[in-house]
Amino acid sequence: MKVVIVGGGAGGISTASNLRKIDKNIEITVLTRDVNVAYSPCAIPYVLAGKIDSFDDIIMRTPDDYKEKNIDVITETEVTEVDSDKKTISYIKDGSVKKMSYDKLVLATGGNPFVPPMDGVELDGVFSIRNIADGVKVQEWAKNCKSALITGAGLIGIEIAYALVQLGLDVTITEMLPQVVPRSFDKDMADILKEYLEKEGIKVLLGQPITSLEGDGKVETAYFGDGTSIETDMIILATGVKPELDLAKMAGCDVGRWAIVVNEKMETSVPDIYALGDCVESKDLILGSNTISHLGTTAVRQSKTLARSIVGRKSNFNPVLNAMVSKIGNLEFGAVGYTTSFAQQNNIKPVVQKVEALTRARYYPNAKPMDIKVICDSNGVIIGCQIIAEERVAERIDTMTLAITEGLTCFDLSNVEFAYAPPVSMVTDPLILAVEEVSKKF
Amino acid sequence: MKVVIVGGGAGGISTASNLRKIDKNIEITVLTRDVNVAYSPCAIPYVLAGKIDSFDDIIMRTPDDYKEKNIDVITETEVTEVDSDKKTISYIKDGSVKKMSYDKLVLATGGNPFVPPMDGVELDGVFSIRNIADGVKVQEWAKNCKSALITGAGLIGIEIAYALVQLGLDVTITEMLPQVVPRSFDKDMADILKEYLEKEGIKVLLGQPITSLEGDGKVETAYFGDGTSIETDMIILATGVKPELDLAKMAGCDVGRWAIVVNEKMETSVPDIYALGDCVESKDLILGSNTISHLGTTAVRQSKTLARSIVGRKSNFNPVLNAMVSKIGNLEFGAVGYTTSFAQQNNIKPVVQKVEALTRARYYPNAKPMDIKVICDSNGVIIGCQIIAEERVAERIDTMTLAITEGLTCFDLSNVEFAYAPPVSMVTDPLILAVEEVSKKF
Repeated sequence: MKVVIVGGGAGGISTASNLRKIDKNIEITVLTRDVNVAYSPCAIPYVLAGKIDSFDDIIMRTPDDYKEKNIDVITETEVTEVDSDKKTISYIKDGSVKKMSYDKLVLATGGNPFVPPMDGVELDGVFSIRNIADGVKVQEWAKNCKSALITGAGLIGIEIAYALVQLGLDVTITEMLPQVVPRSFDKDMADILKEYLEKEGIKVLLGQPITSLEGDGKVETAYFGDGTSIETDMIILATGVKPELDLAKMAGCDVGRWAIVVNEKMETSVPDIYALGDCVESKDLILGSNTISHLGTTAVRQSKTLARSIVGRKSNFNPVLNAMVSKIGNLEFGAVGYTTSFAQQNNIKPVVQKVEALTRARYYPNAKPMDIKVICDSNGVIIGCQIIAEERVAERIDTMTLAITEGLTCFDLSNVEFAYAPPVSMVTDPLILAVEEVSKKF
Repeated sequence: MKVVIVGGGAGGISTASNLRKIDKNIEITVLTRDVNVAYSPCAIPYVLAGKIDSFDDIIMRTPDDYKEKNIDVITETEVTEVDSDKKTISYIKDGSVKKMSYDKLVLATGGNPFVPPMDGVELDGVFSIRNIADGVKVQEWAKNCKSALITGAGLIGIEIAYALVQLGLDVTITEMLPQVVPRSFDKDMADILKEYLEKEGIKVLLGQPITSLEGDGKVETAYFGDGTSIETDMIILATGVKPELDLAKMAGCDVGRWAIVVNEKMETSVPDIYALGDCVESKDLILGSNTISHLGTTAVRQSKTLARSIVGRKSNFNPVLNAMVSKIGNLEFGAVGYTTSFAQQNNIKPVVQKVEALTRARYYPNAKPMDIKVICDSNGVIIGCQIIAEERVAERIDTMTLAITEGLTCFDLSNVEFAYAPPVSMVTDPLILAVEEVSKKF
C-alpha cells in the first residue's frame, strides 16, 4: 500500500510516524512546502522571546531522520493537483512537475494566516507567523526596530506581543473586539490577562480594528477605524488562520462551513482520501455540531485515529472541547469548553461563577492567587472553565476537560476527591471551591 | 437544636463551621484536648523544615474567632463519658467534671499515634508527632541533637526525616517493610523517592524494624531485628495512627475492623450520634469494602455531608480512593487508588505500566523527568496511578482520581483531550503516554 501525505505539519508528520509504528511495509511519502518538518509551531513565540535559545532547538526531527524510518519526506514542494479518479497527485519540485500515484491520500494541508483585506498589507515590515521561516524573518526585522504593532489579541497575538517586548521593542497590540483572547475567555477573565500584559509593558487597544497601513516601501503608520493612527516599525498580523482547501475541493471532498468534512474515522467524502488538522472540521463535544479545532494536540490525536483507519483498524476520533493553555511570562492561563457568550449564542442559559483561590495553603510561602471561572448549563452540567494563575493551571484544565467529557454536573464534581498537601494545593481545591460556589446558584 | 462535637481537628472544626453556614441558630459546642483548633497538622513537617516560619502561621483561626461565629470552643478538655440514652456527655475542664446534654453528638475523636510495644519507648527523646505541641517539643529537643532516627517510612516519616535534615541533623529512617511509602506506592516508584531521600542526606534502612530502645533517662541506642544497633539523640515514631474509639464504644456505636462504622450520611449505628475523620471507616470506591482514609481532605469533605445530615438535608459521602500528594524538597509525589500489591491481595490481576515522560516540551528549558505508573484491572479499568516529578504532579493525580471515580478504562482515557503548551506540558501529555502504553498490554 502506498500512502501519500500532503503537509508536513503536526497532522501530516504524526500520521506518517503512527502509520510506520503500525506497519513496517506501507510505502509512506510526505510532501511539504516547508524546509522543515517535525517542529512545534506553538514554540515559535518562545524562541522569539528568548526562552528557547534557537529555532533549531524546536526542530525535533529532520527529513533524514524520517528516511531512517523508511518515510520519504519531500520538502519545498507544492502539490498542485489531485485526481481522485486516477488516484494521482501532481507536485512541483525544483521547478518541474511530477506525478505520483496513491492508494490512500492524506490531506494535512493546514491553514494559511488570514490576511485582512486592507491597503498596505504588502508593505515590508508586515508579517504573519506560521512557520520557522516566518519566525526567522520577524527576528531579523525586529533587530532594526523600536516599535511593533500586533493586530489580533488571540493567543498567538499576545504570545508574540510578549515576545517582542522581551526583545526591547515598544509593543502595542490591537484587537477589533472589546477583550483579549475572546475565543477562550470571558471578558472579566480576559481583563486579568490584559492587566498582566500591560504590567509587562504592552499597550493594549481594544475595539480598535486596523483599517489600513501606510509607508514608503516599508510600513510606517497604521490607521484605526476611528481615524486615529499609530507610528510603528513593524506589524504582525495575528488575525487567525484560514484552512487551505484548494486540493480538497479539487479532489471533490465535501467542505463544510469552515473546512473539510470528515467522519470519526477521519475519512473525507471521497474514497481513499483522508484529512486531518487545521484543514478539517471537528465535532463539538457539547452541542454535537461541527466546529474547528486549530490545536496541535487535536492534529496529533487525529493522526492516531487516521493511521489506524488507513490500515482498517477500529478507531474513532472523539468530539472536541478545544482545551487550551498558555504561559506568558509568569502567568499561566487555560480554558476549555464554552465561554459565557458562546453558550448564550447557542441558546444555552449559562450559570456562571468566578472564584478567587490560592495555589497553595494560605499559610504556605508563595501561594499565588488563582482565578477560576466555571460555566454550567441550566441543569448544572459543566460546559466551560477558565483558569488564570502563576502556577498549576494546565492540569486543572485537564481535570475539567475530563469532567466535561464525562458530562459531570457541578454537584457531581463537588463530591469528587482531590489530593492535598500544603505546598501544592488548598485543602479544598480551587476547582472544588468553584463548583461548590456555582452549585449554590441552582 | 444543640450539637456537641468531640474533637477539634479538621473533621470536628469543619463540621462546626459548615453547620454554622447552614443554620445561624443551632447551638454548637466543640470540645478538644488540644490548646489549638483549626490548624493543619499536615503542615507541621514544613514548619520543622523551616519552609514555614512558625507554628503560629499554620493556625488559621483561634477559639475566639469561633466565638464570633457563635461557636463555643472548649479547649484542653477531656471528654470522659457519653450516655447515649440520656444524650449527655461528661468532660473534665480545669480539673472538674462537667456534664452537657446534646441533641446531636459528633464524634471527631481522630486517632492517636500508634506506639510500637517495645522497651524504651518511654525514654526522653522519643516522640510521636500529632499536634502542634508535639511539633514544638521536637523542635526544641532537636536543638541539642546531632542525630535522629525516624521509624516508619510512610508519608509522615519521610516528611519529618527531610525536615530534620534541614535542621542540620544526621538523619536515619528505618522501615519494617522493604520499601518507603508502602501504602501508596509500588516498590519501583518508592525507590525513586528513596534515592531522592538519600541524595538529600537521609540514610534509609529497609526491612529493618526497631525492636528496642535503650538509654540512660534519654534515648541513646536503637536496636534492630537483626541485632545491629544505631546511636541516636532522638527517635520519632512515625508508625501510623490508631483511631480513638473509646467514646464510640461507650456510646454503643458499631465498630468495624478498624474504626467506627458510619453510613453515607455519616450516622453511626446509635441514633443522633454522628462520626467523621480519622476515627471512622469509609467505603473503598473500587471494591466497595470498608477501608480507612486518614486524610485531612476526607475529614473536610465528610464534614460537609455531616453538617447537612444533621439538619436533615440530603447529602451522601462518596466512597474514597485515598488520593494523596506531598512535596519533599523539590520532589512532588502523589498517588491514588490501588498499588500493584494491594490489587493482587484483593484478587485483582493488575495490568501495570510505568513510563518516563517530561513535564514540558522536550526542547523547553527545565523540562523535568516525570515518572508515571498506571495500574489497571484485567478489563483495562484504571484502578491506580502513581506520579513522581519536580512539578505538576498534584493536579495530574486529581485527573486520575476523576478518571477512576468515573470508571474509565485506559482506552477511554487515551481518547480524552489534554491541553498543551510547550512551557507546561508535552504535546502528548505524560498521562496519555502512560495510558496508551498500558493499553498495548491488552
